[in-house]
Amino acid sequence: MTIAVGIQGASGYTGAELVRILSAHPQVNIVFVTSERYAGQPMDKIFPHLSLRGDLVCRPLEDLSGLASCQLVFCALPHVTSMKVVPKLLRHDLKVIDLSADFRIKSPEVYQEWYKTVHEAQEWLGEAVYGLPEIYRDRIKSARLVANPGCYPTSVILALAPLLTEGGWIDSTAIVIDSKSGVSGAGRAPAEGKLFAELAEGFRPYSTGSHRHTPEMEQVVSDLLGTSVRIRFAPHLLPQTRGILSTCHVRPLKGKGEISWQERYESHYRNEHFVRVMRAGEYPATNHVRASNYVHLGVVEDQRTGWLTVLSAIDNLVKGAAGQAVQNMNIMFGLDERMGLTQLPVFP
Amino acid sequence: MTIAVGIQGASGYTGAELVRILSAHPQVNIVFVTSERYAGQPMDKIFPHLSLRGDLVCRPLEDLSGLASCQLVFCALPHVTSMKVVPKLLRHDLKVIDLSADFRIKSPEVYQEWYKTVHEAQEWLGEAVYGLPEIYRDRIKSARLVANPGCYPTSVILALAPLLTEGGWIDSTAIVIDSKSGVSGAGRAPAEGKLFAELAEGFRPYSTGSHRHTPEMEQVVSDLLGTSVRIRFAPHLLPQTRGILSTCHVRPLKGKGEISWQERYESHYRNEHFVRVMRAGEYPATNHVRASNYVHLGVVEDQRTGWLTVLSAIDNLVKGAAGQAVQNMNIMFGLDERMGLTQLPVFP
Amino acid sequence: MTIAVGIQGASGYTGAELVRILSAHPQVNIVFVTSERYAGQPMDKIFPHLSLRGDLVCRPLEDLSGLASCQLVFCALPHVTSMKVVPKLLRHDLKVIDLSADFRIKSPEVYQEWYKTVHEAQEWLGEAVYGLPEIYRDRIKSARLVANPGCYPTSVILALAPLLTEGGWIDSTAIVIDSKSGVSGAGRAPAEGKLFAELAEGFRPYSTGSHRHTPEMEQVVSDLLGTSVRIRFAPHLLPQTRGILSTCHVRPLKGKGEISWQERYESHYRNEHFVRVMRAGEYPATNHVRASNYVHLGVVEDQRTGWLTVLSAIDNLVKGAAGQAVQNMNIMFGLDERMGLTQLPVFP
Amino acid sequence: MTIAVGIQGASGYTGAELVRILSAHPQVNIVFVTSERYAGQPMDKIFPHLSLRGDLVCRPLEDLSGLASCQLVFCALPHVTSMKVVPKLLRHDLKVIDLSADFRIKSPEVYQEWYKTVHEAQEWLGEAVYGLPEIYRDRIKSARLVANPGCYPTSVILALAPLLTEGGWIDSTAIVIDSKSGVSGAGRAPAEGKLFAELAEGFRPYSTGSHRHTPEMEQVVSDLLGTSVRIRFAPHLLPQTRGILSTCHVRPLKGKGEISWQERYESHYRNEHFVRVMRAGEYPATNHVRASNYVHLGVVEDQRTGWLTVLSAIDNLVKGAAGQAVQNMNIMFGLDERMGLTQLPVFP
Repeated sequence: MTIAVGIQGASGYTGAELVRILSAHPQVNIVFVTSERYAGQPMDKIFPHLSLRGDLVCRPLEDLSGLASCQLVFCALPHVTSMKVVPKLLRHDLKVIDLSADFRIKSPEVYQEWYKTVHEAQEWLGEAVYGLPEIYRDRIKSARLVANPGCYPTSVILALAPLLTEGGWIDSTAIVIDSKSGVSGAGRAPAEGKLFAELAEGFRPYSTGSHRHTPEMEQVVSDLLGTSVRIRFAPHLLPQTRGILSTCHVRPLKGKGEISWQERYESHYRNEHFVRVMRAGEYPATNHVRASNYVHLGVVEDQRTGWLTVLSAIDNLVKGAAGQAVQNMNIMFGLDERMGLTQLPVFP
Repeated sequence: MTIAVGIQGASGYTGAELVRILSAHPQVNIVFVTSERYAGQPMDKIFPHLSLRGDLVCRPLEDLSGLASCQLVFCALPHVTSMKVVPKLLRHDLKVIDLSADFRIKSPEVYQEWYKTVHEAQEWLGEAVYGLPEIYRDRIKSARLVANPGCYPTSVILALAPLLTEGGWIDSTAIVIDSKSGVSGAGRAPAEGKLFAELAEGFRPYSTGSHRHTPEMEQVVSDLLGTSVRIRFAPHLLPQTRGILSTCHVRPLKGKGEISWQERYESHYRNEHFVRVMRAGEYPATNHVRASNYVHLGVVEDQRTGWLTVLSAIDNLVKGAAGQAVQNMNIMFGLDERMGLTQLPVFP
Repeated sequence: MTIAVGIQGASGYTGAELVRILSAHPQVNIVFVTSERYAGQPMDKIFPHLSLRGDLVCRPLEDLSGLASCQLVFCALPHVTSMKVVPKLLRHDLKVIDLSADFRIKSPEVYQEWYKTVHEAQEWLGEAVYGLPEIYRDRIKSARLVANPGCYPTSVILALAPLLTEGGWIDSTAIVIDSKSGVSGAGRAPAEGKLFAELAEGFRPYSTGSHRHTPEMEQVVSDLLGTSVRIRFAPHLLPQTRGILSTCHVRPLKGKGEISWQERYESHYRNEHFVRVMRAGEYPATNHVRASNYVHLGVVEDQRTGWLTVLSAIDNLVKGAAGQAVQNMNIMFGLDERMGLTQLPVFP
Repeated sequence: MTIAVGIQGASGYTGAELVRILSAHPQVNIVFVTSERYAGQPMDKIFPHLSLRGDLVCRPLEDLSGLASCQLVFCALPHVTSMKVVPKLLRHDLKVIDLSADFRIKSPEVYQEWYKTVHEAQEWLGEAVYGLPEIYRDRIKSARLVANPGCYPTSVILALAPLLTEGGWIDSTAIVIDSKSGVSGAGRAPAEGKLFAELAEGFRPYSTGSHRHTPEMEQVVSDLLGTSVRIRFAPHLLPQTRGILSTCHVRPLKGKGEISWQERYESHYRNEHFVRVMRAGEYPATNHVRASNYVHLGVVEDQRTGWLTVLSAIDNLVKGAAGQAVQNMNIMFGLDERMGLTQLPVFP
């Protein structure tokens, strides 16, 4: 079986990463790519590293002629654009994996509050499945529309999940997430803050407490915990290209743990191919998961202060975007979930 | 007046930074420098950027012949070495600014617990003054021995100080400090973890909850608060050379603040030349204080979650080490505190 | 004496660097700054590292009200803009140091060929003095208009000068210059090629054989040699912010040298404060001159192949732009040439 | 068919890269790895990015028990060590690909001159085949011992090869090679010059005219040209981890070319899967070939000066080491040369 796929919005970093990963997938054929800015140009001109994919020439966004032959469309468009495009795609007999934020938040009110725009495709919010396989694998299997998670939420939710079982092992009023991201997460559009000369040697915070990925995390954590939770989320921009490391500071409830946190994590993720719990005493690092779909988790308890820190490293463009989308595709089409995604990380 | 100074341990990054800063100080004359590894070599050979200081040739550590003509010795040696050397220096008629950790911790038991070694110069712990001018300026004026603060504690204590007045404005059981440092803080001795190929694109945590700067912060915060406090401290290593950014997550006690936190910070530091409170909505960044003695602070409140985040950026080698040492020297010798330290940061 | 200066175009990297350097100059007062994009904004908002220069508020470019009180204007505008502005400035009783390319090339035809635009201020080309003090110091002393050299030409001409005396020591048909520059030389305007994510790990050539600094180098080298010369110039973009390193490959004419090249260089630059010839066996590096006005030169002969390589490192924003402009100012106003420029390089 | 391979020296960057690439090769089974420093440790402890290869535990170098079941050994040991080990391996019924310099140079005298040591396995120099498939593919097919090329020579020889046919198109006395390499080429052993704090913002030359890869380039270029040639080779160290960009300055002989250089290059490499000649006007960059076996070439002629510049980008650890070794393996065992090597480059 070969899955025929299209990519809407192939001229961004996420789109290019989809092309890179799917080109090595044994059961996928990319039948079309689109781009608003680069319509008419071959992929190897937009991205010289894709020198072997000069066969893929970007069509305009509105050119839907390729849809008939497609079974799946990856939608790597900006939010708001996505909510206009996705419903049109779903009129055809195909599945959609949307990599924007538009179908992640279940409540249109919460969406409007954080994204400052009215949601125009609310009829699809109920059917959309949040595409985090390690949490919602079963629902993804039968989904027509998957909302691929944000990069920060992926790193944070996977770090917290083992603490959210059985009603929760932590104080839900004291979840402090301090995340650090490579700049590729901000996309390829030129902006002063993303210039090399501004960012090198220039680590910095941004959107402290007001980042749009916050409600997405809160929604899933609340869902797992069975109660509404608010999270203090502080993102930062790293002088590096790829990688997210989230430092999750939480407070275990007293008297609960009978096994060590280390053991709880190892047990929880024993059967997850893409999640690796580091040995006690080892720390994750962003370049140990670079260009791969793997997640490295570290757990550090501190008896002295009573806090527990969970550390989580992913590649924001792979497990945080394109790789996870391919993982979702594999699940939606009944393939081995790992197919095309087992390349080891690139280090150094 | 010219102050004649010596530098013990001039072949590390901090020693070189002392030479750089003091060479531009209008009232200082460096009369000798020492180095264990590079005895006999001129500074411009050890550090080519010091091409104009080929006149300074490193003496062996034990060569004390220069002391007679000195009024002050900067001691930039590793801990444990320092506690052996400093008492010998103090037998002469001079002052000492020690940049190691050896005279920062008041309690020899706490020192032993964190540094895994018995303190051999306990008789000096009482007299040593913790050299953070914005907190202990008065004591520094008359000190013979100043313990220059660690880089992390400098960034953290200055960030927290306005919240520690009048018995404190925050929940002292929920102080979570998430710090990120450039690698120059780890010194010049070769080690795998400091290699370019290991660190570039490789942001990572280390010593979570167990870093030796923790008791130093706790000592000063406890002193200011008037009660014993424990801090959750999580340091990380940045893929950059200089700079520390500390993200301090705290929880204001309800019903206390009558002015905004922003105003409290602006008011608290109004007269401090080296501390700048950013405008509301602006964020500090490490490259905005690079190669300077300035501190940039940002304050971000979050009504939604009830947490307050204070962000603090310094250059770890300047305000976090050599620059603060020179600031202390100025105070100890009755000079204008800013002398030789008003160079603006180097950006980009 | 205090020199009252204005800065036209203060919102670029070069303008900010002029503010940084001049703020530490003991005999300069900045009386106005201008900016097209940021008119009305204080410098500390445009550049947070200039937190102490909030007193300088950018005026619109055309606001000439500050000129009456000025003795010197630094013009840090883009080329073409400069040729329109400078003649207006010179109608007042003041001197001008222009940091654009507009007054560097003596021939309007050559200018037009490389810059693809007709020169509109040709009447000033004759009077303009090329501001490379180590070569043209005497002319600079009495100049009203100084054309501050380009960053690449500064690094290349100083590297070649000792080989161009007495009719020249090298084959003038085989001058191959391979230069590498930090990205700050390309300015602060956002562009895809200057993004962190595009440049990190992405060293690359550009404008090989067609860079606009080529005729500037050729003009000076031809002048020194007394014959018209063409240079093969290949620039590259480094994944770093500051610094230029030029590798100059030349072929000594046989039978000429009686002293070693190393000795020739040391002798040639013996009295130049800002030029340091490295010891034989030592190499220059961009971070050994960072944030300073110093130049490091290395000379490597190769008997085996008959080629000679001269290596030259500068900070493109200082000796390659703002620092050299201040050096020129000092000369034009009879001050010690080094004034305000003796800060040692910032390393690491 | 599955090829059973061993890796001698798996704890360096090249060894790790072999493990990474071979783990994704459909017809290879790694049966043993060795390491002098890390004997007894699993690969995922030495290199956390190899978290899925904890099954590979390093044996001591001298443990030859795995050889019996092997058909091929990759030898990723330092030079001198390699010449002692390889002959012992070849006593068994297997093939060897040696990644050190020990079997690249045909003349033991030249080897001794550049490597300052007597060659102890001269009996193998004749049989060893220089493993650059695009040049010596036929000989590699039947080789028992392949000397895998150095990283710089790979980038340079592939850049020059189209100019060396039919007796040569260029002046063989004026070949100036200016190369720039990421620091991973210098290996993982800690050293001051490879520290992040020394190299970031610190581009620098080294071993100008005296680098040990020089005779290797000269040997192949002389072989292709049919006459003995000397090359001026100037390497530099980049502030980045992976990638080599070589800028090759040559002088075409007049009156020879009937087609453009661009066409000559495109024609020459038309059938080479791993070599891509960029379109006229496009430039190669190291991050466009990152983590891949691909080579990007650019050709820039300059009528004005008569020089021609060929630009060549590779990943030093892949096409410059481990990837090329796997390409050689494929050829030696009659597999599709591209097998396991078609992953697209990782960008950004």
